[in-house]
Amino acid sequence: MRTLTVQLADRSYPIHIGPGLLKRVELMIERMPQKAAALVTNTTVEPLYSRGLVAALEASGVRVVRVVLPDGEAHKNWESLNRIFDLLIAGRCERNTTVIALGGGVVGDLAGFAAAIYQRGTPFIQVPTTLLAHVDSAVGGKTAINHPLGKNMIGAFYQPRVVVIDTDTLETLPAREFAAGVAEVIKYGAIRDAAFFAWLEQHIERVIARDPDALGYAIERSCINKAEVVGQDERETGQRALLNYGHTFGHAIEAGVGYGAWLHGEAVAAGMVLAAKLSRRLGFLGEQEVARITSLLRRARLPVDGPELSVERYFELMAHDKKVEGGRLRFILLRGLGEAFLASDVPVVAVEEALAQRHASDV
Amino acid sequence: MRTLTVQLADRSYPIHIGPGLLKRVELMIERMPQKAAALVTNTTVEPLYSRGLVAALEASGVRVVRVVLPDGEAHKNWESLNRIFDLLIAGRCERNTTVIALGGGVVGDLAGFAAAIYQRGTPFIQVPTTLLAHVDSAVGGKTAINHPLGKNMIGAFYQPRVVVIDTDTLETLPAREFAAGVAEVIKYGAIRDAAFFAWLEQHIERVIARDPDALGYAIERSCINKAEVVGQDERETGQRALLNYGHTFGHAIEAGVGYGAWLHGEAVAAGMVLAAKLSRRLGFLGEQEVARITSLLRRARLPVDGPELSVERYFELMAHDKKVEGGRLRFILLRGLGEAFLASDVPVVAVEEALAQRHASDV
Repeated sequence: MRTLTVQLADRSYPIHIGPGLLKRVELMIERMPQKAAALVTNTTVEPLYSRGLVAALEASGVRVVRVVLPDGEAHKNWESLNRIFDLLIAGRCERNTTVIALGGGVVGDLAGFAAAIYQRGTPFIQVPTTLLAHVDSAVGGKTAINHPLGKNMIGAFYQPRVVVIDTDTLETLPAREFAAGVAEVIKYGAIRDAAFFAWLEQHIERVIARDPDALGYAIERSCINKAEVVGQDERETGQRALLNYGHTFGHAIEAGVGYGAWLHGEAVAAGMVLAAKLSRRLGFLGEQEVARITSLLRRARLPVDGPELSVERYFELMAHDKKVEGGRLRFILLRGLGEAFLASDVPVVAVEEALAQRHASDV
Repeated sequence: MRTLTVQLADRSYPIHIGPGLLKRVELMIERMPQKAAALVTNTTVEPLYSRGLVAALEASGVRVVRVVLPDGEAHKNWESLNRIFDLLIAGRCERNTTVIALGGGVVGDLAGFAAAIYQRGTPFIQVPTTLLAHVDSAVGGKTAINHPLGKNMIGAFYQPRVVVIDTDTLETLPAREFAAGVAEVIKYGAIRDAAFFAWLEQHIERVIARDPDALGYAIERSCINKAEVVGQDERETGQRALLNYGHTFGHAIEAGVGYGAWLHGEAVAAGMVLAAKLSRRLGFLGEQEVARITSLLRRARLPVDGPELSVERYFELMAHDKKVEGGRLRFILLRGLGEAFLASDVPVVAVEEALAQRHASDV
């Protein structure tokens, strides 16, 4: 087991990474104010991991209320949130009851947001079971639900007490979801860790094959990057925004094809290629670097072409994105591999050109 | 104009109190990151004060999106919250758009909670127009909506950037709502300010008659008390809980008769009498002090008898209250006028006896 720390003064918390950690419930209990928990999971994860975790917690004297949600991004909405509240209230959960999220990014976002606003805030623990959640969504305290007009429109910054990453949970993850998580791993290399990007170019096939050593290293390196950024800019007033590389296009893609049709990581992959093309168009990135990003994503079995939406539709969807400020579109761009920056006032025509060339072969 | 400060380090904010402040929009604009606002109000306040405020803001170059909600505690729910989000999104409100609450406690709670979770947090300003909001709900950052099974079950601690209290707005406040606000004024005297309680015993008729000097003093003294408590215990881990004196019974009363049938301050008034009787039953308060509290509330034209619910029903409703911890009922009690304390493990039989004597004449 490796342990990192997210440095946030009196709200600092550990991230434990390793195999077999689902059985080590003491890692959770030591961060709970009392032995009472509400375990939030989904119908897919429940038969795989929930029963064992509940049994282990109960064997240690923890009272556990269970909340099982339907699976999928389409359910990251008020309805699921309200289902959590109904069961928390029915189960007499109190301010000191710890909400535990067991699942992927959707479960983590829903359970975390529920914990943030149930009785104005209850303790929260992340136990992610997908690669995307391991390397991204479980770390850093962003929680939210979707609104019909925009992804993650309603939410809170709310930090967990601890993140417990059991790498064994990836054994059951479907290949498509696994690849979607790799998109965010590659993102860390692209935006702030050129050495890690180069390592991934060497070892991406081992990562995809879920070789324990390669995968463990990729998860740890991703979490280190995420923890550093969050520790410096918790509420995204500055450099944390760089983590959204590929996400302005990505969110438009997710909304444009209908939430759930593309996985978040898939949309981000295609979004990163578009953002790289935009960076190149503005003279910040060379053709060869765009090709390296595209090639690495393709080797990771990720989509690199944007879907068939009109340029007008892309713009319409992006205008609802949170990264709009003062009416102008802002973009995270690259000025080389491993160095992202925030560009305001990106010319509309450059974005149109990048979108017109949304097939990877259009360079 | 008098200005107090709520001391919360980098989130400290001013409270301005005085007549005619609705016209002094610079007090709001100086606390806004950009000249964009969403004004949230209700159908009652809208024709009285909203148009003038919007005109004044627009004359100063502020772009204003308007949100008008139905009036009343019955609307402090998810439906109203979602209506705010729909209009914020339709009006292209961004992360730097300031949400302004113009109205009473319900508007403040709804608009404040909306600001807390819209795009994970937008700036927020309180412009309260009822006495209850002036002296209590607009100060301190508690925001929430009700759940069918419990009042304020879903919410956030989210501080405003500034509170602007225009005391002229009380001229149009109906007598019943005005009295409900006086309940919270009296509460400050009862729980932590014996000199203020004695002053109120001298001057309550002037306050009720809305004499500007007496009323201005009562509002200022109430805000000073509230600001001190919030500055010391923002998230209610300790003494802030004392502000809930009368509220455990009060919330049960509100839920038991159906939200909106009794005003919050009315329920708190009857709840304070019940809590005083409970304090007496446990030997903390004398008969004469219970009588002084009851008499002052009665002179303020507030209910001092609990409604006709069975003792069992009171218990059922109180068990859902947030102040339950570890399965035990906790109560804020008085050990003399001006000195409240938190009692855990209050014997059930004493609560039953206090409830059985829920008519003020039963002492």
